[in-house]
This record gives sequence, structure tokens and C-alpha cells, in this order.
Amino acid sequence: MTTKNLINFKSLGDARGDLVALESERNIPFHVKRVYYLFGTNSGESRGYHAHKKLRQVAICVAGKCRMVLDDGKIRDEFWLSQPTVGIMIDQLVWHEMHDFSDDCVLLVLADDYYDESDYVRDYDNFIKQVSF
Amino acid sequence: MTTKNLINFKSLGDARGDLVALESERNIPFHVKRVYYLFGTNSGESRGYHAHKKLRQVAICVAGKCRMVLDDGKIRDEFWLSQPTVGIMIDQLVWHEMHDFSDDCVLLVLADDYYDESDYVRDYDNFIKQVSF
Repeated sequence: MTTKNLINFKSLGDARGDLVALESERNIPFHVKRVYYLFGTNSGESRGYHAHKKLRQVAICVAGKCRMVLDDGKIRDEFWLSQPTVGIMIDQLVWHEMHDFSDDCVLLVLADDYYDESDYVRDYDNFIKQVSF
Repeated sequence: MTTKNLINFKSLGDARGDLVALESERNIPFHVKRVYYLFGTNSGESRGYHAHKKLRQVAICVAGKCRMVLDDGKIRDEFWLSQPTVGIMIDQLVWHEMHDFSDDCVLLVLADDYYDESDYVRDYDNFIKQVSF
């Protein structure tokens, strides 16, 4: 796993300011069914600590920053998300953790399906078993 | 036109922080095809000044605030968007303007179609003619 997971989005801004557009099945590699955002994360809190069996997601810090850890069971890598023009693809069966949220962080996530608890793998040992096959 | 255009989103947050989820054809009344966000808007700049013939949108300030003006040709109303849990529906043939962006404003917009310049009505007199029929 490398920075190949990063997606650079062009700012369509002009003299007024910046604008980034994310489009289903264009610069986002799936049809967007759910959009969510994390904000007001308490200092020192981390989030994530799971993988998804099927869900595919793209995450972008549209304000502030946080540190994203991605782990495919072989390589554990991390990236600072700190620019509204940079997203990270979180593919199926990738363990992910988010740490070090800045006070002003707004982490926007686009997902290809609705919330489904049965799609979560929340135990790391179980995750490793699933990616070992 | 009244505050009926406002949509309150539940925060699914817990002790870690807040999370708002927007779902196509659930709490968003259309299938989301395009997501865009305005940020880094220069002080004193306004945006919008158009209506759409067909496009439907929901706008939310996920950080900071701005003042949204909506005008259906009969009533001109305005709202401060300042909470990540409050969205505003911008329906077809509603003239909209955004003013007084705070420096930290990130205005997130969900739309039911891709960008299409031919869908824009950028002249106010032309807009008034279109809604008068």
C-alpha cells in the first residue's frame, strides 16, 4: 500500500474562492449513496478501528486535519489528510484508523452504500484472518 | 417560502464527537450524483446569483457560516447557515445567493445531477419571466 490510494481533486476556484466537485463514477470511482462527516471530535479521541467487507469509501479533510492509518493486513501505512483537494480511497477489507484530529477538523466521507453493521469487521485478529485467505 | 426549506439532520455522535450522515433518497430527497464544497471564499465575496431549471440541491455549512438568500420570484427569504446539522433545500427554479462567508466557512452541497451550464438561469429578469408562467 502506498500513496496510490490518494486522489487529487482539482480546485475549480476562481477569484471568489475555491470549489471542489466530487462526482459519482467520474472522479469518485463509485456511485455515492451515503455522505457523512465527522466534526467536533474531542481532543485525543481516535475513530475507525474497523474494516468493511464490501463498502468502498473516499475520505477528505475539508477543514483542519487528521492522521489516517490504513492497513491491508500486510502493510500498515499512514497519511496526514490536511487539504480539501486531497482524498484517500478506503477500499474493501482495509483496516482504518483516524487519529490526531485537529479541533477544527471536518472529515468528509463518501460511501457507495448505506450503513450496514453486518458489513463491519471490528476485531483486528478477525480482519487478519479474512485478508489471509 | 419559509423555513420549510430547512432540513434538520440528527447527529449520530457519541462521546468521541459528532457524525452526520446524509443518505440518497432517505434524508436527502434525491439520489446524490455530485457533491461539491466551497471553501477559502475571499472576504466580501458573494456567490450564486442563479437558479437551476432542473437541478435540486441541499446545502449545509459544515464549518463556519454564510447567509443564504432564496428567492422563488414571489418571496425573497434569507437564512444563516451556521450548523453542520442544518441543511437547506434549494429546489428547481429558486434564485439563490450566498453572502457573508466566514473565513473558515466550508459550504457543502449535494446535487442530483452533474454540472450542466445549460441548466443555469443566470439573469434575474429571465428568471422572473420563467417563474411567472
